[in-house]
Amino acid sequence: MKATYMFGAGDVRVIDAPMPVIQQPTDAIVRTVRACVCGSDLHPYHSLPTTEEGLSMGHELIAVVEEVGAEVKTLTKGDFVVVPFAFSDNTCVFCQEGMHTACVHGGWYGTPQAAGLQAEYARIPQADGSAVIVPGVDPETASDDLLASLLALSDVYLTGFHAAYMAQIKPGQTVAVVGDGAVGLSAVLAAKQLGADTVILMGRHESRTDLGREWGATHVVAERGAEGIAKVMEITNGEGAHAVLEAVGHMPAYEQSYGIVRPGGVISRVGVPQYEEAPIGFGSLFGKNARLAGGPAPVRAYLEDAIRQVLDGTINPGKVFDRVVSIDDVPTAYSAMDSRESLKVMVDPSL
Amino acid sequence: MKATYMFGAGDVRVIDAPMPVIQQPTDAIVRTVRACVCGSDLHPYHSLPTTEEGLSMGHELIAVVEEVGAEVKTLTKGDFVVVPFAFSDNTCVFCQEGMHTACVHGGWYGTPQAAGLQAEYARIPQADGSAVIVPGVDPETASDDLLASLLALSDVYLTGFHAAYMAQIKPGQTVAVVGDGAVGLSAVLAAKQLGADTVILMGRHESRTDLGREWGATHVVAERGAEGIAKVMEITNGEGAHAVLEAVGHMPAYEQSYGIVRPGGVISRVGVPQYEEAPIGFGSLFGKNARLAGGPAPVRAYLEDAIRQVLDGTINPGKVFDRVVSIDDVPTAYSAMDSRESLKVMVDPSL
Repeated sequence: MKATYMFGAGDVRVIDAPMPVIQQPTDAIVRTVRACVCGSDLHPYHSLPTTEEGLSMGHELIAVVEEVGAEVKTLTKGDFVVVPFAFSDNTCVFCQEGMHTACVHGGWYGTPQAAGLQAEYARIPQADGSAVIVPGVDPETASDDLLASLLALSDVYLTGFHAAYMAQIKPGQTVAVVGDGAVGLSAVLAAKQLGADTVILMGRHESRTDLGREWGATHVVAERGAEGIAKVMEITNGEGAHAVLEAVGHMPAYEQSYGIVRPGGVISRVGVPQYEEAPIGFGSLFGKNARLAGGPAPVRAYLEDAIRQVLDGTINPGKVFDRVVSIDDVPTAYSAMDSRESLKVMVDPSL
Repeated sequence: MKATYMFGAGDVRVIDAPMPVIQQPTDAIVRTVRACVCGSDLHPYHSLPTTEEGLSMGHELIAVVEEVGAEVKTLTKGDFVVVPFAFSDNTCVFCQEGMHTACVHGGWYGTPQAAGLQAEYARIPQADGSAVIVPGVDPETASDDLLASLLALSDVYLTGFHAAYMAQIKPGQTVAVVGDGAVGLSAVLAAKQLGADTVILMGRHESRTDLGREWGATHVVAERGAEGIAKVMEITNGEGAHAVLEAVGHMPAYEQSYGIVRPGGVISRVGVPQYEEAPIGFGSLFGKNARLAGGPAPVRAYLEDAIRQVLDGTINPGKVFDRVVSIDDVPTAYSAMDSRESLKVMVDPSL
């Protein structure tokens, strides 16, 4: 089968890989309906040292179940499922607390535990806990829009939602979103779902901020750094935002975040931090009782509700996809996202 | 009148200062019933450069109102009040959100805005918002224990409470408290008030941890660093604490905190950070969705409830005081706390 591997910075190839097989009785084998490329895939695309064996890529998927292990109870061949970007048993103490990305039997795709999901077929560990059936939808006849929105639930939308959820947004609050990538735009949509009143989107790419406006952003601030902070403070009457959803992961985005968060407010991060140390003392967070939240989204915790919202038309998170490629063309998906020609690229193995 | 000034590291003197007078129509002048020395007063005691004019010290007070400005509506001469360590108008947008330490008309004692409170008399700015009447108590006849517990509400207990409150402790949770100073012990008491089940106190001074046990600590961990972390992980079945209340402010205490916080848990800091940058990336907070909270306690937000709890005997936070000195002996209070002979020293100007 065809599968995507990265052999060094900028070197993405689709190769012929062995078909996945059941390894544990809790595994399932699925056939890809749609996969996609994540903003976080661009980090190794910039920095991966050359590797002979290659890095198996991809962690976002909607798929049809082909085969299940002996202990899988909730899935059968033919089920159409959304697969969250991290697998989890959905039963351990941390899963019960809604922290599926800390599952004691959980893990990540594109690691020795499980191959990446930019492939024609995949093995899903902890299948009962990790794959959620989309009821009443046949992927062969479903609209492209519906498939796109379901695919967005495997990571991008629910990562944006996680930022908003961990910020404990309350109706009427002012929310600032730092970053106009697909996760930032998703955070705008999620903030509106949770009742945010004013939503300030900080980003400078008009085609992207337009989707942000469509999803509920009341203000767009293109300025960065001190200028961007001043603009947000002006919009918020000098008070700052109740919640800042940081969807970038670089230090300037964090610095911008603590510059615009209100006393007692919260910075909720879902951009994977490209730093380890950062200011959190009296001059940044402590002095104004600003809080910090966020991390890898426990997509599984939010998935049933989000599938319902997609199916009933409440949300349409698939709009972040602006290009579809065949599995052979996955390398062009990486370059198009890297050059910002595309916001987010979907992979359709039937093409 | 007598007032406490610091003229350099280790150099505390009680001097003859001018009687405070009403400067703003929102001011009140009060006569000190009890004041005290704070752990945070020891920071300048270690590091203050020599200064000729001196630094006016103290920010914790129970007092009797002597005189009020023309615009003060809620206080009259003779009222017995608790004065929080920061003054605030109790009406601005941040006060309404419970963030009185960010009040737009607020400020701190021992600054050009207002003299310190280790003195016989004091001027209280924003008196309506800042001083809260203790109903039905005559300080001349009240017990020493009652006065001590009311004094503890002006900072130490409600700072510990703030740590627990910002950690959003839920009944049944496991809480770890880092630091066995007066604030850490107060945090133990507050965590129990909020329903914590297991409370692990990290501290090595037995006379202090004994009070912690009396207030509800179920475990005491004397070890620090990696050993201390291992001990807490053992107690928590390898899971870590839902909430870590950090009442020290030094980097090792913070490092210990992120070592023992559970995935999805929260570190709530009330020890004033003696650092600005600290680890918050994937390896410390982000990877396990650990949250960060805390800052200067908005004591005013919690004061009415806490006064009620002291008066009805629910809490007895005054037990942190283990020595009483006259105003002339305030310098010995600093040295006794600095050498850890005393946990916290009360000042009684009537002595």
